[in-house]
Amino acid sequence: MQPRPIRLAGQPLGGGRMPAICAPLVGRTREQLLAEVASVAAKKPDLLEWRVDFYDGIADTKDVVDLAGRIKAAAGGIPLLFTRRSSREGGEPIPLVEPQVIALCGAVCASGHVDLVDYEMSNTSDEVCEVRERSRAAGVQLVLSFHDFNGTPPLDRLQEKFALAEQLGADAAKVAVMPRDMEDVLTLLAATLHASRALAIPVISMAMGGAGAVTRLAGGLFGSALSFAVGQQASAPGQWPIEELETALALLRKASGA
Amino acid sequence: MQPRPIRLAGQPLGGGRMPAICAPLVGRTREQLLAEVASVAAKKPDLLEWRVDFYDGIADTKDVVDLAGRIKAAAGGIPLLFTRRSSREGGEPIPLVEPQVIALCGAVCASGHVDLVDYEMSNTSDEVCEVRERSRAAGVQLVLSFHDFNGTPPLDRLQEKFALAEQLGADAAKVAVMPRDMEDVLTLLAATLHASRALAIPVISMAMGGAGAVTRLAGGLFGSALSFAVGQQASAPGQWPIEELETALALLRKASGA
Repeated sequence: MQPRPIRLAGQPLGGGRMPAICAPLVGRTREQLLAEVASVAAKKPDLLEWRVDFYDGIADTKDVVDLAGRIKAAAGGIPLLFTRRSSREGGEPIPLVEPQVIALCGAVCASGHVDLVDYEMSNTSDEVCEVRERSRAAGVQLVLSFHDFNGTPPLDRLQEKFALAEQLGADAAKVAVMPRDMEDVLTLLAATLHASRALAIPVISMAMGGAGAVTRLAGGLFGSALSFAVGQQASAPGQWPIEELETALALLRKASGA
Repeated sequence: MQPRPIRLAGQPLGGGRMPAICAPLVGRTREQLLAEVASVAAKKPDLLEWRVDFYDGIADTKDVVDLAGRIKAAAGGIPLLFTRRSSREGGEPIPLVEPQVIALCGAVCASGHVDLVDYEMSNTSDEVCEVRERSRAAGVQLVLSFHDFNGTPPLDRLQEKFALAEQLGADAAKVAVMPRDMEDVLTLLAATLHASRALAIPVISMAMGGAGAVTRLAGGLFGSALSFAVGQQASAPGQWPIEELETALALLRKASGA
C-alpha cells in the first residue's frame, strides 16, 4: 500500500511527494512574524506552521485571529498549520490554561485563516474531542501529535500513539521522539512504516536532534508525509535548512527511483 | 563505540568518514578498463574496485597481474580492491573453476598491485583459509563478503554472516541484500548497527535496488564503512553516481552534526 500524503481540498500536499516540506514560523512579535512569513514563503515550502506558543500576543484572541489572517495573506497560497506546542512537549511557556488554548484554536479555526490545526493527544479525551468538533465544524484538518523530547518509547508504544490519533478522529497522526542512539532511529522508522500501512490517515514522524536528522530526509520512504525544515529559524533540533533538504531529497528520490 | 573505518597502512580510508566511497571498474577489455580507470579516478573516490569477473582476459593470470599494475598506476594513488564476484552472488560467468580463482587472487595479491581482495564467505572454509593465507602473506587486506540478490535473510542470519567473516579472519565484513520492502531495509540497517558494535573489524553493508538506495547514503550512520557508487558504470543495482552521493552525503553529515 502506498503511504498517504496529506490532502487539502482533495489535492495532495506538495504534489504528493513524500515527504512534503513544512516550515515553522516562530516570531515573537507581529513585526517579526510578518517579516518571517515573507522570507520563509519565498523558499516555497509546501506548508507553513505558525507556532503560536512563541508569539508574545497569544493571550489576545482577537489579535491572534487577525494575525493569522495577515500571515495567511502573506503566505502566497501556501497552506497554514496552526500549532500551540505545550511546554511539556517542547514548546514555549504561555500564559493560557488549556480551556483558553482550546477556545483560541476554535476561534482561529472558525476564522477560516488556517488549513490545519495541531493538538496534542496527551490532553484529555474531552479536550481532544472539543478541538476535533471545532476544527471539523470549520473544515480545518486536525493533526493529533505526540512528542517525547527525552527519549524514544519502545516500538509498541509508538504504534499505540499513531493508532490513538486515528481513534481520536485525527486527519493526520504525528509522532516525534528524541533518539538516544541509532537503534531508536530505527525504532521510529519501523513504527512509522507500520502505521503508514495500518492506518487510514497520513502519518508524520521524525526523530529529533543530530542522530535523528536522517529521518527528516528519509522518513518519506518509510511513510512519513511531512518533514519540518528551517525557513528562517528552527522550531526543533535536527531540522534541515529547506534548500539543503530539497537538494538531498531530490537526489534520494532519484536514486530510489521514487 | 564509534564505527570503524577501513584502514590501509594505518590511515583511515576517506579520512575516516563513514562511509568512504568505492567506485567499481567493470570494463571487459584492457582498453575499456584503462579508459575507465582514468575517467573514474578523476572523480576521486576513496577506493577503486576492479571487478575482474567482467574482464574477458580473466583466464590469463599473467595478463590479469599485468593489468592490475596498469590500473594501479593509473589510479593516481587511490587504493585498489580486487574482486571476483561469483555468478551465484550476482557476478559475471567466468571460465575458471574455484581453485583457479584462488590461484589468480593469490598471484594478484603477491604482485603488490592491490590493497584489498574480496572473497565470498559462501566458499568452503578451506578455500577461504587459502585466500586468507595468501592475502596475509602479501600484506593485502581480505574482505569476506555475502550477497543475496533474491531477498533479505532475517536479522539473526545477517548477524551470523557478519560474525562469520570475522571468525574466518577477515579484515572487513561485507553483506549485501536485496530488499523486498522497506522492512528489509530496516533489517539490513539493524544488522549493520549490531555488527559494527559487536565486531572488531570494519563492516560494509548495503540493501540493493531502488528500495535500498537510501542505505548507500545513510548506511554510514549505522556503521557501514564503505558505499559503492558509480564512476562510469554501475556494478550492482541502486548505486548512486559518485557526484550525487558526495553532495547528499555532505548535506546529511552536516544535518547530523557528524
